Amino acid sequence: MKPSLPQGTRDFGPETVRKRQYILDTIRSVFELYGFQPLETPAFENLETLMGKYGEEGDKLIFKILNNGLERPEKHAAANEDFKKVLEGKNVKGLTERALKYDLTIPFARYVAMNHGQITFPFKRYQIQPVWRADRPQRGRYREFTQCDADVVGSQSLFNEIELIHIYLEVFKKLKINVTVCLNNRKVLAGLATLCGGLEKMTIITIAIDKLDKIGIDKVNEELRQRGNDEASISIINQYLDIAQQEVSNAEILKQLKTMFKDTTIGLEGIAELEYLTTNFETVKVDVTLARGLNYYTGTILEVKPLGIQMGSIGGGGRYDDLTGLFGVPNIPGVGISFGVDRIYDVMDEKALFPNELNQSVKIMLVNFGEAFEKRNMEVLKALRAENISCELFPDAIKFDKQLKYANKRNMPFIAMIGEEELNEDCISVKNFNSGEQKKMNLTEMISLLKG
Amino acid sequence: MKPSLPQGTRDFGPETVRKRQYILDTIRSVFELYGFQPLETPAFENLETLMGKYGEEGDKLIFKILNNGLERPEKHAAANEDFKKVLEGKNVKGLTERALKYDLTIPFARYVAMNHGQITFPFKRYQIQPVWRADRPQRGRYREFTQCDADVVGSQSLFNEIELIHIYLEVFKKLKINVTVCLNNRKVLAGLATLCGGLEKMTIITIAIDKLDKIGIDKVNEELRQRGNDEASISIINQYLDIAQQEVSNAEILKQLKTMFKDTTIGLEGIAELEYLTTNFETVKVDVTLARGLNYYTGTILEVKPLGIQMGSIGGGGRYDDLTGLFGVPNIPGVGISFGVDRIYDVMDEKALFPNELNQSVKIMLVNFGEAFEKRNMEVLKALRAENISCELFPDAIKFDKQLKYANKRNMPFIAMIGEEELNEDCISVKNFNSGEQKKMNLTEMISLLKG
Repeated sequence: MKPSLPQGTRDFGPETVRKRQYILDTIRSVFELYGFQPLETPAFENLETLMGKYGEEGDKLIFKILNNGLERPEKHAAANEDFKKVLEGKNVKGLTERALKYDLTIPFARYVAMNHGQITFPFKRYQIQPVWRADRPQRGRYREFTQCDADVVGSQSLFNEIELIHIYLEVFKKLKINVTVCLNNRKVLAGLATLCGGLEKMTIITIAIDKLDKIGIDKVNEELRQRGNDEASISIINQYLDIAQQEVSNAEILKQLKTMFKDTTIGLEGIAELEYLTTNFETVKVDVTLARGLNYYTGTILEVKPLGIQMGSIGGGGRYDDLTGLFGVPNIPGVGISFGVDRIYDVMDEKALFPNELNQSVKIMLVNFGEAFEKRNMEVLKALRAENISCELFPDAIKFDKQLKYANKRNMPFIAMIGEEELNEDCISVKNFNSGEQKKMNLTEMISLLKG
Repeated sequence: MKPSLPQGTRDFGPETVRKRQYILDTIRSVFELYGFQPLETPAFENLETLMGKYGEEGDKLIFKILNNGLERPEKHAAANEDFKKVLEGKNVKGLTERALKYDLTIPFARYVAMNHGQITFPFKRYQIQPVWRADRPQRGRYREFTQCDADVVGSQSLFNEIELIHIYLEVFKKLKINVTVCLNNRKVLAGLATLCGGLEKMTIITIAIDKLDKIGIDKVNEELRQRGNDEASISIINQYLDIAQQEVSNAEILKQLKTMFKDTTIGLEGIAELEYLTTNFETVKVDVTLARGLNYYTGTILEVKPLGIQMGSIGGGGRYDDLTGLFGVPNIPGVGISFGVDRIYDVMDEKALFPNELNQSVKIMLVNFGEAFEKRNMEVLKALRAENISCELFPDAIKFDKQLKYANKRNMPFIAMIGEEELNEDCISVKNFNSGEQKKMNLTEMISLLKG
């Protein structure tokens, strides 16, 4: 049998795990610095927890787990009583009653709803776990991928948005990725819809605006016309887009929008929120064409784009009013952000931003010259590890060349040799692969060399 | 809808995640110190990669993933063409072609078999990931749990065993858990089987011996008799068990076994291996009644038992000759160990071995006295975070009491207050919850207090 991997999944070898771990550790440490607390939920949830939360298309992309005992209907359907019951509709559980999680937000909402009596609010949680989607695999899109979320629930304060934007800026500074944080507010989009005839137009308008980058203004207008917007509305929307696309300061854009929105309360509210947030940051960009797909957002929406590289957003989020309402616990507002770990990895790989040390698995290998030197080698290993220096003895006393090749392939910067001569002189020969230099020294000297 | 969790699964709240992370980080750091490299494989594998690897019972406990599009046969079987094909045996993929991984060993073997051309051998890998089993949930047994393995493949040297035993000892020393590492060798059990009439008796004999602790010697003998062992064999086995159970040194037990095994080459080989390993450790115990269930073990087998607590083994492993042979790549020998993370957690929780700091999520909270103080609060946050001190400002300017309660529930050791007075005096009032002391200080003083 020739083994293979399921479509859309990946093995992560040592170097990739280290690089991914570097990204995740950086994000985790910033989350902790800002007072966020870790949460982990199971890989699978009850089917009904997930179904209906991601739209009809989403439902289809959820991986369902087969109930046990139903595996082989084609071989013995007649003999499989459990399976016959499923077919006759007598088994209410059907074929499946569990499913792999599709994102981290719904399981988080389920957790908050289940535990809201015990949770101290505001609850600031972060969650870094894999999720699964039965999407058609393609470049950069996988069926298993890691999500990395931070949310605050139980507080309406815009200060939470400020903290989350700081988290974005701090993480990407640490990872050395230049980014723009783009900011909008659903209330501004609601204001625009109000000017165009009513809130019920919001979805149509935002879907059209969201495509501006891809299809251009003419096709956006065409789509708006087809969807039943009159010329007056289209003219308002175009005026809005003209304001949005000027190369001017955030303050100037917001000033012009304020005039335009002077008669819509909700629009002015959105602008006031944007004003508050942008005065706190120099590097954040107001982009009122930003829509974001998820319907549960109600206030701030934001997205992070990497600069100087052809790549979609590497982070996004927003404010929602009532996520846990889905699970019978209303009135817990929240705001959250998410990091696109796979794309961040791709940016860093392409721009060679990973620290070199991540390549280096082990600091030093002791060459194995046979049993006679084992005792001394073990003493050296013990001494190095007591100093927290990673090291290993090649396990077999095979040819020197082969051992050297192993050390090179593993990117070890040093090897040490203890043979007859070294044993007699009570020293160790240490070779530095970078400089090519080889030198005899005692254990203390060797430790300070490796630590330096 | 009232939300719930699937049977046998768990949410891990902040405190539990931190404690689990502490265990995993400790193990990971020791793995790295010993030159092991991380590997991660997908949550699900192709069904045929897993099926038939864990015995008939295991096959039933593997969670299979339903192929997409087959979800609701009871509702519309007639209309679902894909599903009809499954029933008629025309869809070769059947209901399922993917399954959640059941352990880390088979996916590792699959990885090595798939990549053996690129891998530098000996390959020392560690892997820390969840696995899933459709076992009936009960106390301490879950359907999703974390495994934590280290294996060396591509080397027959017993030095690998020495390293792995050191890893066990070092990890449990760091975690402050007192343990005994019990050691045996399959070749010793093979020697016993040879003395009793032939190697084919090995499984029956080891299964019976394995039960000694639970059912006692009389029932073991009864079982041996029922399984077709003659009185001569039973007498040999009893002699073996008598030697095994003496309260004497490892050396003495091995000496007596050597006499008993003088005519079986394989038995003597096993004893020689045990001798080599035990001379390197003072704290390892030879236990030749140790059998371990997995049939793929061929040499060393070992198990770790916690002392002073009623609990099964918290780690185990052994040597195997040909794991990747299952996937068409023969002759890659290996040896590995595994940590039982859930049981380790239970031991540490019961014995209160977790460091206190794990309870402490954030170092300090700034009390929110309203907008007038926001700017100063933000400056302080920024300064603290630049010093890597975790902190937060309560996001809403609600009643002081409520903010205090939040800080207490989160186990924060300090709060800071900046009101009118502090603003005027350019200072900060800092309260230490442990001592109850409250003091005015400047930012520099505050930072050194929090870092001290």
